[in-house]
Amino acid sequence: MSEVFFQIEGMHCDGCARTLQILLEREPGVKRASVSFDQACARVVYDPAMVERSELAAAVERPGYRVIGSAD
Amino acid sequence: MSEVFFQIEGMHCDGCARTLQILLEREPGVKRASVSFDQACARVVYDPAMVERSELAAAVERPGYRVIGSAD
Repeated sequence: MSEVFFQIEGMHCDGCARTLQILLEREPGVKRASVSFDQACARVVYDPAMVERSELAAAVERPGYRVIGSAD
Repeated sequence: MSEVFFQIEGMHCDGCARTLQILLEREPGVKRASVSFDQACARVVYDPAMVERSELAAAVERPGYRVIGSAD
């Protein structure tokens, strides 16, 4: 398993964070996700054989949020 | 195809609505979804052979929103 942290711009409330978390958890290859509105970030544990980090960033950005940084 | 409208409580911003819309669009059997923050509602076009209305309502409620009414 691999792990990535995304710094995210554009979440306006806890509802955004909870909904984005479930969206990420339903991506193929994602084992765990947690998203924090207060911290403006997401932590995703994923199987790198099934999904690439760029696809996870794309999943974050699809609803209109922006990934402005990432870290292992 | 069938169609359902849900009246939804708990969305706080357009980000909630956009993210919930993508979550619904990714449910198996859903052909189209649109979610409005201003109207506090969702419209979902789905294949009733693949997904039940109750499952769609559960998908709305999983991030913490509440379905307070539905209509065909």
